[in-house]
Amino acid sequence: MDNLFKKAFEKIKESNNIVLISHINPDGDALGSSLSMYPVLKRMGKKVTIFNATKPLPEYLDFLPNFNKVTDKLPKNFDLMISFDCGSFDRLGIEKKTAFLINFDHHISNTEYGDINIIDPNAASTSQVVYNFCKSNGIDIDKESATCMYTALITDTGSFQYESVNDKVFEMAADMVRCGVEPAYVSKMLFQRDRLSRLRLLAKAYETIEMCCDGRVAFVEVTREMMEITGAIKEDTDTIVNSVRAIAPVEIAAMLREDEDGIKISLRSKNYADVSKIAVKYGGGGHIRAAGATLKGEFDFSKVKEMLKKDFQNLLKGDK
Amino acid sequence: MDNLFKKAFEKIKESNNIVLISHINPDGDALGSSLSMYPVLKRMGKKVTIFNATKPLPEYLDFLPNFNKVTDKLPKNFDLMISFDCGSFDRLGIEKKTAFLINFDHHISNTEYGDINIIDPNAASTSQVVYNFCKSNGIDIDKESATCMYTALITDTGSFQYESVNDKVFEMAADMVRCGVEPAYVSKMLFQRDRLSRLRLLAKAYETIEMCCDGRVAFVEVTREMMEITGAIKEDTDTIVNSVRAIAPVEIAAMLREDEDGIKISLRSKNYADVSKIAVKYGGGGHIRAAGATLKGEFDFSKVKEMLKKDFQNLLKGDK
Repeated sequence: MDNLFKKAFEKIKESNNIVLISHINPDGDALGSSLSMYPVLKRMGKKVTIFNATKPLPEYLDFLPNFNKVTDKLPKNFDLMISFDCGSFDRLGIEKKTAFLINFDHHISNTEYGDINIIDPNAASTSQVVYNFCKSNGIDIDKESATCMYTALITDTGSFQYESVNDKVFEMAADMVRCGVEPAYVSKMLFQRDRLSRLRLLAKAYETIEMCCDGRVAFVEVTREMMEITGAIKEDTDTIVNSVRAIAPVEIAAMLREDEDGIKISLRSKNYADVSKIAVKYGGGGHIRAAGATLKGEFDFSKVKEMLKKDFQNLLKGDK
Repeated sequence: MDNLFKKAFEKIKESNNIVLISHINPDGDALGSSLSMYPVLKRMGKKVTIFNATKPLPEYLDFLPNFNKVTDKLPKNFDLMISFDCGSFDRLGIEKKTAFLINFDHHISNTEYGDINIIDPNAASTSQVVYNFCKSNGIDIDKESATCMYTALITDTGSFQYESVNDKVFEMAADMVRCGVEPAYVSKMLFQRDRLSRLRLLAKAYETIEMCCDGRVAFVEVTREMMEITGAIKEDTDTIVNSVRAIAPVEIAAMLREDEDGIKISLRSKNYADVSKIAVKYGGGGHIRAAGATLKGEFDFSKVKEMLKKDFQNLLKGDK
């Protein structure tokens, strides 16, 4: 890895006009890791564009230093592009590769679309890869960079709760504090700016929770009517299926949401079931523990539940 | 501190029959920090009793190593008592002091009721004080101790989100992992064993959220009827007022709950309001950001809200 870090740094040093890019519909790690490089490159005297194809950007990340510098316009000319947290080229949201490309990521599924690919599947976040890159090259991390890296780290670990969390993650967090990060401030920005509409939606949705398969499966519904009554936005549905999975005996949680183009199903598993198999069956995809699909056509909630119940029973067969 | 640590360790070495005690209605830090000392003392060949006066103990902590060894019976004779996370003697739940007492805590309000008082208000948890005690004395921390210390740390910091979190906290967490802690396992035990009754209660309670004072104050209600319909227990109400405080503009959140002995009010503030003042006014108490009281007598929710609204308006006066 140190060799790749060195090669990438050499390339950065010899470039002048650099584009930082992250995946469409960016999360905290995508924006956080790309923004963390901005102060580094500015100190080196580079011309820097922070690009993301999605507009508007998620509001809950608006506290990130230099958030307002993110643009959805690519410059005409640039000699280096650096991508962050993006598993495949098509998710960059640009038409074609027109410059040398350094690809920072931590997804094992990364297609290595860059000229230099720095992929560490053991990292808890792409920002941890960028952090290691900085440490390896003796690059100073200022408070702005650190705040972005730290935000990326806690959003991608659920505030230090996921399997990816180990001693290296905590050592990085300690170092982030030494670089000036205020952990409570970041947590407040992320978790203490909730919307009343979201709580109102939870109230409606939680009423619909239905347990089956001896409590190992739970369904929850979000109808268009609930969204309208509560004034909720799609983002407000984000945590619902995770909260339902958190019920003690539940192994698989499924949220059904009425969207414009069909019924969106969001699947989560807790310990062993591979829900990506079921998402793929319905034309969707995802990970073992978190996957989803959209069912188009003549479906209603009860029909979808019936189908999924059978799928889940098959998936759980043989487990106890 | 090192001097106190040494004195306490000397006292432990010369004692044979030791009682570990923590405050009544124990939380993760109280039980976690007391349980963390058990393997240490057993390795030293001591006879150890882990005491807590509360029965039953909170179920969500039942995964802590040696949880099942906690008893509410004091031994007849013992030569040393060590208390954990307990601010004053009366909260130990015992009648009188009958042995030498070492008092480990991190509450600035600790009344120093011990013979040796090891109080570090800068520590994020009492378990961090115990951790420093072990490091200072060269005491090995095994996986069982570390799991207890780590659990105490994350319950007392809201999974690394509170003001108390700094580089030392993260360094301790990193070390806990090196001692064998599996962070994701602990998080799963704490946060992925939810009750359906709790989500059902949230559904009812969130429907009652009422904003006032330009959105800076929010009320939420929990009636006896809600508890009965949903089959919820008191513990299920724990997070409600925090979730309401998390709404973006809210500075003060108040939960009103119908209890057997009156109306319990739970108060939270986000950034500046000192809600303990209001709790004290109604015969309760607590901290600046989290306080509570129980109103006995002829009150109903609307009357209590009316009174509190005036209190909050006064408290927020002059702020913007």
